[in-house]
Amino acid sequence: MSEDSYALLDAKLKRIHALNSISGLIGWDELVNLPEGSADQRQEQCATMAQVCHAASVDPEIDTLLSKLEAHASELDDSQKIVIKEARKSYDRSAKLPAEFVSRKARLDSESYHAWVDAKKNANFSSYAPFLQRQLEHSKEFAGYLGASDNPYDCFIDLHDPGMDTASISKLFDELKTGLAPIVSQIFDSKIQANTEIFKGFPIAEQSNFLKQITTALGFNYKRGRIDTSIHPFCGGNGADTRMTTRFDEDNPLDSLFSAIHETGHGMYEQGLPLDQLHNALGQAAGLGAHESQSRLWENQVCRSRAFWKCYEPELRKQFPKQLDGVSSDALYLAINSVSKNPIRVDSDEVTYNLHIVIRFEIEKRLFDGNLSIDELPETWNALYKELLNIDPKDDAQGVLQDVHWSDGSFGYFPSYCLGNMLAAQLWYAALEELPDLERNFEKGDFSHLLSWLREKVHLHGMRYDLKALALEATGQELSPQSLLRYLKERYLPLYS
Amino acid sequence: MSEDSYALLDAKLKRIHALNSISGLIGWDELVNLPEGSADQRQEQCATMAQVCHAASVDPEIDTLLSKLEAHASELDDSQKIVIKEARKSYDRSAKLPAEFVSRKARLDSESYHAWVDAKKNANFSSYAPFLQRQLEHSKEFAGYLGASDNPYDCFIDLHDPGMDTASISKLFDELKTGLAPIVSQIFDSKIQANTEIFKGFPIAEQSNFLKQITTALGFNYKRGRIDTSIHPFCGGNGADTRMTTRFDEDNPLDSLFSAIHETGHGMYEQGLPLDQLHNALGQAAGLGAHESQSRLWENQVCRSRAFWKCYEPELRKQFPKQLDGVSSDALYLAINSVSKNPIRVDSDEVTYNLHIVIRFEIEKRLFDGNLSIDELPETWNALYKELLNIDPKDDAQGVLQDVHWSDGSFGYFPSYCLGNMLAAQLWYAALEELPDLERNFEKGDFSHLLSWLREKVHLHGMRYDLKALALEATGQELSPQSLLRYLKERYLPLYS
Repeated sequence: MSEDSYALLDAKLKRIHALNSISGLIGWDELVNLPEGSADQRQEQCATMAQVCHAASVDPEIDTLLSKLEAHASELDDSQKIVIKEARKSYDRSAKLPAEFVSRKARLDSESYHAWVDAKKNANFSSYAPFLQRQLEHSKEFAGYLGASDNPYDCFIDLHDPGMDTASISKLFDELKTGLAPIVSQIFDSKIQANTEIFKGFPIAEQSNFLKQITTALGFNYKRGRIDTSIHPFCGGNGADTRMTTRFDEDNPLDSLFSAIHETGHGMYEQGLPLDQLHNALGQAAGLGAHESQSRLWENQVCRSRAFWKCYEPELRKQFPKQLDGVSSDALYLAINSVSKNPIRVDSDEVTYNLHIVIRFEIEKRLFDGNLSIDELPETWNALYKELLNIDPKDDAQGVLQDVHWSDGSFGYFPSYCLGNMLAAQLWYAALEELPDLERNFEKGDFSHLLSWLREKVHLHGMRYDLKALALEATGQELSPQSLLRYLKERYLPLYS
Repeated sequence: MSEDSYALLDAKLKRIHALNSISGLIGWDELVNLPEGSADQRQEQCATMAQVCHAASVDPEIDTLLSKLEAHASELDDSQKIVIKEARKSYDRSAKLPAEFVSRKARLDSESYHAWVDAKKNANFSSYAPFLQRQLEHSKEFAGYLGASDNPYDCFIDLHDPGMDTASISKLFDELKTGLAPIVSQIFDSKIQANTEIFKGFPIAEQSNFLKQITTALGFNYKRGRIDTSIHPFCGGNGADTRMTTRFDEDNPLDSLFSAIHETGHGMYEQGLPLDQLHNALGQAAGLGAHESQSRLWENQVCRSRAFWKCYEPELRKQFPKQLDGVSSDALYLAINSVSKNPIRVDSDEVTYNLHIVIRFEIEKRLFDGNLSIDELPETWNALYKELLNIDPKDDAQGVLQDVHWSDGSFGYFPSYCLGNMLAAQLWYAALEELPDLERNFEKGDFSHLLSWLREKVHLHGMRYDLKALALEATGQELSPQSLLRYLKERYLPLYS
């Protein structure tokens, strides 16, 4: 009986996946292709598609099939058990939310987003505060429907990184914060400063060629994917058809390049998931932290390394001879690895980035446990920036209003970025241990050994392991900030002393 | 009561339209963006979406609402009556087909398409004949479900051009054939020959700039549309978001330009339909012939005219000075209006094109009325080409196998192209009568008067008028080939004598 029920469930999941992938495609098209005047029809299309996807995901037959399969768990193999566990989680997340709540939340998201845009433009937190307050209340209500009234923030963390919770992250981040302080101090106290003014007048067409050459060499499969241009770089689609984007600025070629490399890391993870299981947990990413570990590993450990630039500096100079005339190799490498005091998270370097996240986690935690009110947010934000980064944001636009995430209630998302950085460094040293020639391969433009290793250790497993289990399985060690701290010291202290 | 029912029906039609527009978008993406290796997922997506669209279109509540409204027709205004009449036609076309037939037909279409591709590659009609036979039988079965067993070909003509039938088209085409014969003879007998070899080495980027400049000047609204590249040019989407394509060849700049202009004609029709009614008959095109009248009018009457090139020849020479060095204005204009004996419909000029269509209509008519068997098709094809165009196709690939249409049973489609040419010419002279300065405006690059006239006479009416009624309303004259014959004589005889 279980076999039949499993096949029926599988067909349902396939249909949901197909519908979601269509929603994804029209979302991609909106950000990449949509004519400026056509937003009205796209809104209709998105709303209709959301409704079709929702109806498919709360199909009561799924509940019946899951219940049958759960009652006969002993007949299932391990893979099937994972599929069923995650399908149950997804089903409940969709089905337990009252329709009235879903539409109320959608309205709030839209209003709240526009309030955030206005507030940021005017650097006026108070106009946005009531929306943020409502988002916080809605988030608690959401957690309540999922039976998590007692620990709503845990519920949101689990949404992004299954298996993680507030306590685990607190412990990891405290250790990270302590370890980062002396590194950041040493760099900030250093007299050495990168000159990023050298990157002026790099024509877009050549930038595009250069980054396509690199992302192809890294291993992105352009036969099942493409790269386009959008205002904010992202990676959409899935391994069957991976759509990533970057953006171009003639005076900032590193932005387009490293955005493309970052998204390539995401894309290669998607492309490494088992293609015949994309519709279920075996073919889906282990979480946002795991996803971020892939983008960051390629972006930072690999493509900001001396070995990588030994290979690509000559190519860069060939494509942009005039622009780089008179720029030494050391100056170039320092500019690529520039660290600076920046109040804006998305513009910050990989050293200070982690502290931007620690601050956001600290704030979210306090908001959820009642130790911080929305009104106190700007003050607390500024105090934490002063304490951890010695930065005084000039206004709230540069401070608490800088990120879009909270405007649609995406609490519990920020930690993923930093968890990804930790796992990336941990994977890096584990790979290096097993494949000591890695950096010599990079010098020759060969990244295949690392990609194969990641395929085997991370990609192929889908959601089989959660973040903690994945760290342990892939690296033999518990998830910890120590590899990240080691890596940052090894990479940055020599540059800044 | 009717008002309520009408509002409910309207909401259903809106949803169907949104779903169909999503299907359209993923179809566009498939032809424009899809990575070569991602066809498998796209097939899944298309199949899932087709099923969702079908389910929405056969929703029995639509039948109930339509029946209620039909029973209270006296309470409806004229616009509502049109909406209901066409919604009934669409509903019946979807709902009257048994699911078994729909899936059998879909399988046949797929097999038959591949059989056609193979047959064309090998110039081997006999391998394709059994599929064509089955398509013909399925078409008769289809007509039977719609209550048209006695006149199946009429049923297919009406699918493409509501209001038209075999007898009307026969009469129009006979008159056209008779009138065309001496024009074609005179051109074929002329010693004057265009030199199309002058178009070599036109860089794509400049071609693209040039055609964007022209299509913008014609009036395509790029704020609600875009142009991309695909193997076969087409115009998809709708007036809310119009997606047209062209294709580029460095040695054939007229192909990309006139393809873009042709699709611009289609696109401007879509963009001229009432935006708030796109989901019902008031905001949808009057048929394929009407659609083709718009693409052909802009492509031929407008953009192959002396007046148009008086404006754009200097621009063309500015963009391609070296390539056009030594080419006289007259040689250029003749090359743009070249007529030649070509066995391939899609490569033929606007004079002989019509005879290619007359041949196909003649064949379809005989296939449906039983006066021609599939086996006799190649022979009849070649005989008709000999008779009407004095062409001997060198094999069946160049003959009866050249078009894709019959492979998916699209009978009754070909006549639309020629009906469109007739209406285009008829509209042209009617516009010229009312706006005698039209060509002087073209010389100054101003096409707005013609576009406004078409908006008012054609676009704004949606399906309010069928093809015949539209001709009469817009031009004051019955649909007839006489304007087309007049136009071809005026345009081509001076060039070729």
